[in-house]
Amino acid sequence: MIIVKVGGSVFSDKKGKPENFEGATVRSIAREISKFYPRKSFIVVHGGGSFGHPEAKKYGIREGLPEDWKTANFRRIGFTETHQAMLRANARFIEEFVRENLPAFSVSTSSVFITENGEVAYGDLEVVERLLELRFIPVLFGDVSVDLAKGIDILSGDQIITYLAKMLEPEKVVFLMDVDGVYDGKPGEGSLVQSLARDEIDSLLERLRCTASGTDVTGGICNKLEEAKKIAEHSEVWFVNGKVPGRLSGAIRGDGFGTRIV
Amino acid sequence: MIIVKVGGSVFSDKKGKPENFEGATVRSIAREISKFYPRKSFIVVHGGGSFGHPEAKKYGIREGLPEDWKTANFRRIGFTETHQAMLRANARFIEEFVRENLPAFSVSTSSVFITENGEVAYGDLEVVERLLELRFIPVLFGDVSVDLAKGIDILSGDQIITYLAKMLEPEKVVFLMDVDGVYDGKPGEGSLVQSLARDEIDSLLERLRCTASGTDVTGGICNKLEEAKKIAEHSEVWFVNGKVPGRLSGAIRGDGFGTRIV
Repeated sequence: MIIVKVGGSVFSDKKGKPENFEGATVRSIAREISKFYPRKSFIVVHGGGSFGHPEAKKYGIREGLPEDWKTANFRRIGFTETHQAMLRANARFIEEFVRENLPAFSVSTSSVFITENGEVAYGDLEVVERLLELRFIPVLFGDVSVDLAKGIDILSGDQIITYLAKMLEPEKVVFLMDVDGVYDGKPGEGSLVQSLARDEIDSLLERLRCTASGTDVTGGICNKLEEAKKIAEHSEVWFVNGKVPGRLSGAIRGDGFGTRIV
Repeated sequence: MIIVKVGGSVFSDKKGKPENFEGATVRSIAREISKFYPRKSFIVVHGGGSFGHPEAKKYGIREGLPEDWKTANFRRIGFTETHQAMLRANARFIEEFVRENLPAFSVSTSSVFITENGEVAYGDLEVVERLLELRFIPVLFGDVSVDLAKGIDILSGDQIITYLAKMLEPEKVVFLMDVDGVYDGKPGEGSLVQSLARDEIDSLLERLRCTASGTDVTGGICNKLEEAKKIAEHSEVWFVNGKVPGRLSGAIRGDGFGTRIV
């Protein structure tokens, strides 16, 4: 089984209009997956892009539920609005996959995961595992979450993948990004790291000054590398450009262009 | 806690255009609930109406997944299309509830329930229970389901409610219909049954000739009465007209017009 993460910036321009969606890019990703399905099985997880992030910020979801009833209810409404925005992104994914005749099936992240300070505390994978057995392609997404510590929080696609990798031991995890992989420095400036051993991640994190938090509500490359370090215990990890046709296929085959963590 | 079932025929005309939705009716239901929230807590479950049923029929979802790959994949696609249609109905519900400032939160039925021949075999209510604690209004819906016997099947809103009632012991379950309640005979011909003891249900089922299956994919009044019999072990049950403003409030207060099962 292969887990494919489609980063928000791959299918959507976070700085563009609300809920903009690059259908052609997602369709091309679906087409690459269809070349390997059903010989290989897949789980797809996508991020928020221009869908989830504006609402999550506007309502301050990450701050949790306060005591004050009025603020709490404002945030409850925001929680539900953020989920609905993510469902709209997800519906577009399902649509593009179905066009390629792939039985992608929407699994609502917030219906199956509970977090504690944004990290998975509990996740019921019964349905996901059975969907895989029945040859569906479960599609999950970064979403809001019921949180044991704060009442509510955000669960990022990357966190979901770390949990899925630990529980389901996939053959491979492929992160699709809008750059060619992981850079030793700023993308476009530093050089692309084509191969990275798991125990070299810490020193790269230091060179990238990954001590502070990332740039969006769910974190950027620093968070991704932190998660990749955990995932690499269970699975091969690839970071490839999701906007360039063929790169995903290369990662699935194992001879592709991007960053491979072994 | 009160469970409100909104029948498909209350918010949608099954014989009308695909995916027709009576927003005003749902908004009026939300407005009635808002008079009791947050003093009382609620779970809402809605049916398919003109959303789920056409797809479920077209693809023959209830027949399960066959051996033959081509037919199986056609049905897999239908499974995902049916769920997406139900999510569109659900999104309209959430929208109307949010307009009334109610924090209704979508829980994907197919993400948390597994059936065996269409009856709940497994349901993870962890998220639903925590949502209730946090004062959300979980909104579930009749949906497709992974099925232990047939691979895939349909899980009706009524079945979900029976399971929720058994597990969560609500104070009351209110079924909203497009008629005034349960009739001793054909609606409009027989007389309305205003009060029905649980042990009188069997003889009513006989008089209604409820031996064959119902009229839609998830069954009509016969199925409802069968489920009501089970639910009445745990909770008071009401059947009231969801299209007449005030009837839901009457059932919640306990002095309303409709059928009460005690």
